[in-house]
Amino acid sequence: MIKNVAITGGTHGNELTGVYLVKKWQKNPKLVERSNFKTTTKLMNKRAIKEVRRYIDQDLNRSFSLDDLSNNKLDNYEAKLAKEINSLLGKKGSSSPNMDFIVDLHTTTANMGLSIVVSNESVTTWRAIAYLYMVEPNLKVYRWRGDIENAFVDSIAPHGFAIEVGAIPQGVLRADLFLKTETLIYHLLDFIEKENKNEDLNLPKEIEIYEHKSLLDYPRDESGDIVAMVHQDRQDRDYTLINTNDPLFLTLDGETIRYSGEPLYTLFVNEAAYYEKGFAMTLAKKIKVTIPNRKEE
Amino acid sequence: MIKNVAITGGTHGNELTGVYLVKKWQKNPKLVERSNFKTTTKLMNKRAIKEVRRYIDQDLNRSFSLDDLSNNKLDNYEAKLAKEINSLLGKKGSSSPNMDFIVDLHTTTANMGLSIVVSNESVTTWRAIAYLYMVEPNLKVYRWRGDIENAFVDSIAPHGFAIEVGAIPQGVLRADLFLKTETLIYHLLDFIEKENKNEDLNLPKEIEIYEHKSLLDYPRDESGDIVAMVHQDRQDRDYTLINTNDPLFLTLDGETIRYSGEPLYTLFVNEAAYYEKGFAMTLAKKIKVTIPNRKEE
Repeated sequence: MIKNVAITGGTHGNELTGVYLVKKWQKNPKLVERSNFKTTTKLMNKRAIKEVRRYIDQDLNRSFSLDDLSNNKLDNYEAKLAKEINSLLGKKGSSSPNMDFIVDLHTTTANMGLSIVVSNESVTTWRAIAYLYMVEPNLKVYRWRGDIENAFVDSIAPHGFAIEVGAIPQGVLRADLFLKTETLIYHLLDFIEKENKNEDLNLPKEIEIYEHKSLLDYPRDESGDIVAMVHQDRQDRDYTLINTNDPLFLTLDGETIRYSGEPLYTLFVNEAAYYEKGFAMTLAKKIKVTIPNRKEE
Repeated sequence: MIKNVAITGGTHGNELTGVYLVKKWQKNPKLVERSNFKTTTKLMNKRAIKEVRRYIDQDLNRSFSLDDLSNNKLDNYEAKLAKEINSLLGKKGSSSPNMDFIVDLHTTTANMGLSIVVSNESVTTWRAIAYLYMVEPNLKVYRWRGDIENAFVDSIAPHGFAIEVGAIPQGVLRADLFLKTETLIYHLLDFIEKENKNEDLNLPKEIEIYEHKSLLDYPRDESGDIVAMVHQDRQDRDYTLINTNDPLFLTLDGETIRYSGEPLYTLFVNEAAYYEKGFAMTLAKKIKVTIPNRKEE
């Protein structure tokens, strides 16, 4: 039984879709109320939102590892904020957490469409994903293993995931993507309400998802500065197969660098925030995942 | 006779196209050398470039008014930087300036394609524009009157303009737009070389441009926060006519706000950097401008 759901926005202060959806819902809480659980909405990184920056001192959405949450020497703005949020919406790993389900709203400059990024293996998480997959045929699901595991906002609750919507520049609202994200959240709340009632949902038995394989960095010089861009033939081609020898990068001098790996799907292609993290795109495999029955958990 | 040309990039630290073009040319200066003038390339706002932010304290590209340049009380980072740049590439209003022509490289999150933004009325400036218009059929020209006049980087030289390329998110390089900007600069340098030689250029007698009329702000609440987005039917429609009663904004609550003015063209639609400046788009009229003969100056 899911009793408490949190919808979080502005974890990154320059991703405005989540910021303004949460503002909307805080003015009109009825929109996210359902009959059999409580919904909390939260603006996460208020200083970064004010400055329209991803973060002030460190990426809040990489600040929720158990080690970091219990390390009192980490005392910069986001490290402290993560501990506050964990007390409020966690605690992470607790057997009686304040929130049962967290959905964290993000946007990306990559052409990711309407995506779920999931690192959680719980039955409820995957049944929720299967429901959204069923009602939103354009939804893509990315099982992420490309970063510090379990340091995301949604990791402090037993169930949850992040929503990534794009392509959208940082610091910009797009009405089309705002509406798509909003609709997806209403579907998610509907699912939880039905799931709590043990309704028969006719979920698909299996769904197709993208399973993270590796990160692919830009070519860089000795000082770490990039010396090539995503090739124009690869730009905007998220969830698209890249074959061996396909154009991958274009150096600033105009030379094409080709992909030398095995055929995989490219995701998060040319996301602004990942230049500093050291990758130009991620590579994933398309796989099928079996959706568990309710009683398994 | 043009003796000194400056190509400036990174005036806004999160507009990477100009930053990496200047880096490229500083490694390979021959690419921007021509036979009868000297080309200088300059990375403008190094602190902002390092932080991948538009600016540190104030917008450098609004810091070149004569009043501000002579006001020693203005001593924040960009105010001081503007004075240094003015000494190096100006001085503004001088009869023997260090640079005769400045082209300042920008990008925009709006769908502006390949654009020139010009506030300068000099004969050489407009002949350069006419040449580029002739060789680059997709080029658009915007005569800007929407901000503090003459406070742009290019205003410190007798001739010049800014190039705006988009749509591109802040903090991102796109190979396609990088290549288009690069090509446009080579055409500009070719023009100056030919103009210096008094070559017959067969310039068009007149060109079609967009003449700034007004700024259009987002609907906002009492605290100044936006309460509506650019309507999904207006998004990405730069250089496109808006008619009376066309959808203009969508409130966060889902209501459509319609345009009530006379038919005009919308530009810089939903540019990230202009949320704080107080406009959602600019409105312009399409007009024809006569290209002057060389001898008139």
